[in-house]
This record gives sequence, structure tokens and C-alpha cells, in this order.
Amino acid sequence: MHSKFIVIEGLEGAGKTTARDVVVAVLKEEGVSEVVFTREPGGTPLAEKLRELIKQGMASEVVSDKAELLILYAARVQLVENVIKPALQQGCWVVGDRHDLSSQAYQGGGRGMNSQLMQQLKQSVLGDFAPDLTLYLDVMPETGLGRARARGELDRIERESLEFFNRTRERYLALVAADDSIKTIDASQPIEQVSSAIRETVRQWLREQQ
Amino acid sequence: MHSKFIVIEGLEGAGKTTARDVVVAVLKEEGVSEVVFTREPGGTPLAEKLRELIKQGMASEVVSDKAELLILYAARVQLVENVIKPALQQGCWVVGDRHDLSSQAYQGGGRGMNSQLMQQLKQSVLGDFAPDLTLYLDVMPETGLGRARARGELDRIERESLEFFNRTRERYLALVAADDSIKTIDASQPIEQVSSAIRETVRQWLREQQ
Repeated sequence: MHSKFIVIEGLEGAGKTTARDVVVAVLKEEGVSEVVFTREPGGTPLAEKLRELIKQGMASEVVSDKAELLILYAARVQLVENVIKPALQQGCWVVGDRHDLSSQAYQGGGRGMNSQLMQQLKQSVLGDFAPDLTLYLDVMPETGLGRARARGELDRIERESLEFFNRTRERYLALVAADDSIKTIDASQPIEQVSSAIRETVRQWLREQQ
Repeated sequence: MHSKFIVIEGLEGAGKTTARDVVVAVLKEEGVSEVVFTREPGGTPLAEKLRELIKQGMASEVVSDKAELLILYAARVQLVENVIKPALQQGCWVVGDRHDLSSQAYQGGGRGMNSQLMQQLKQSVLGDFAPDLTLYLDVMPETGLGRARARGELDRIERESLEFFNRTRERYLALVAADDSIKTIDASQPIEQVSSAIRETVRQWLREQQ
């Protein structure tokens, strides 16, 4: 089987790190040992600098929605061109913590940015490049944010309002419904059941690829 | 007269700083005392951070052309929304060291980036916002780079090849020819003549605005 790009998506506190470990365990069972991890925004030295700017913001000024979106795409294209595509070409699988769907949901849904701008930017920057499989971990914002808060201090995005995360989740759900390559996992269940659902979904998908 | 946005453009070492001083002196003579200076990329705390990333690059990785372009537009929209537009609305004039024309020339011409992408990005990010007057200081790359080198260490962009700057200048000249709001100044002349040409051009333009 050719190497694949699998992305894990979802709100803060949805359980993306646990999901990643489960995906990697399943891949290993299936004989895939060369796995590259990525996270967005970030994953290259430049992209990590951009992540910091996005996450921390500036004490002295408001980050405009468009600047935020452009910085996210700058980090993404840097990661895709310098890490993800080369890894896939070398036969490594790539498991990503977030990718373009996050911008569609957070900036498109949460921030309510113009959908034509979103579409044009995605097309101009990424072209036809897209994950082979996306696991969307669905959780109510209240639940996810509660977990994120329990982990420690919140960053600039995590401090957004509940309405912001409700709009983000709604957009996630709309995008998931329109794209067969995205599988939804009910992440409000106890962790064992979430892990088991992920395991089953990835195994099933791998069988379909053969 | 309504407040205006005047931009100074040109290659490295074209004499943009001197030109700025001349423009401000003329504006003062004409009774304009409230002038805000901007430089691009930069001019806000976030945009200056982005400028640093663009100018220094990363020791350990190549900055992709698309990432560079997106970072430049992120810095630009942050500056336009947080500094330039508010200043103009408050009745201040704005004199900018570089603006969008630089991206058109350096990234479009120098880097040879896809013109559809360039056009879409400009339109989506800036819409119809544009300078009222642009002074393009025309200088041969050899001359300009010689001056820039004499000033000290070169940054990541200034270390580009002569061919890069030749393509950039050619694109500048093509763009200037197609836009009446851009006036060309022959910046290869001795500094007194350059200053005098700028003074005359700005005065003439101000008369036309009344």
C-alpha cells in the first residue's frame, strides 16, 4: 500500500493526542512502522514560530482575522512542502494533529470568515493536496473546553467564547457530512470506547484501501 | 484635501529613506503636518515579528515561496487594518516605505510566482484598498545593491542573485507602465537631482488633487 496522510481533527479537549497513539498502534499492527507525526500550526522551525505568534498573540494589538488566516496558511504550506510531501514520497506514513479542516472550521465557522476567500486561499495554496483519511473527534464544546481547562492555562484561541466553539463545531459537522474521507468518532464516550471506535474505523478503512 | 496614502517603492539601495524625507518636507510646506510613517513588511508589533522571520529566514530550513508570500500579506493586512486605515480616517497622511507593489515585483517578478495566485490574494486580502500615489525609484540592480552592500550586512532577500533583482525591476517597470497612480523617478541620478525630481512630482500631484 502507498503511504498515506491521516489527520486527526476536533475541538480543544476532544482527545486528539490519545487518538494519535491509537492510530499509530493500529498502523504498527498492520505492518506500518515508518510514521511521521505533524501538528498544525507548526511542525517546522518556521511554522513553529508562526504557531507561537498565533497562540500567544501580541499583548499590544489585536490580530486581524485575515492576518491569522494567512499566518495559518503560511505555516501549513511550509509544513506540506518541507515535511509532509517529502515524507510521503519517501514511503513514510504521516499522522497529523490538525490540517486544513481546522481552518475551515475555526476561521470559516468560528470567525465567520468569507467562504469565497477561504476557498480561494485553500485552492491557491494547497491545490489538490488533501489527507487520505481524517478522523473527526466530535465533542460538545463544553466538554472539550472543560478537559482543556483541566490541562492548564488556555491560549489565545482557547480563550474564545463558547459561541465561537459552537460555530466551529457546527462547521465541522457540515464539512464532515459533505466529505466521505472524513470519519466521525463520538469523542464524548469514555476513553476506552473512543479508542475502540478509532481502532475499528482505521482498520476498516485500511481494509478498503487494499 | 482628504488625507492620502503615499508609498515609496524601489529596489534595495534605490534611496527610499531619502525620498521619504523629501516627501514629508514637501507635505509640510503644503501645510500637511500630521504624517504617519509605515514600512513593509512591518509597522505593527506582529508585523515586525513577521518581518524578522522573512528577513532572517531560518538557518535550518528553506522558506517556501508561498509561505513567504502569505507571511508578507499577513503583515500587510495587519498594518492596513490596524495602522493605515485608522490613520487615514483620523485625517493623518500616511507615507509608506513599500506596500503591495513590492510583492507584485519581488514575489511575482523576482520569484516568478503564479500571477493568478498573486491577483487572487491581493483582491481577497486588500480588496480595493490602494495607495493614492506611489513613487517608484528606478535604479539598476547593480547600482542599488552596491549602495545596499555599502550600508552593511545583507539580509535573506538582499542576498538573492542579480537575475532575481533584474526580474524584479522588469516587473516594477511593467506595473508602473500600467498604472497612472505610480510615478517613476530616475534614482540613478545624483541625490540632489533625485530629491528635486521627487519634490517636483509630489508638488505637481498635490496641485492635481485640489
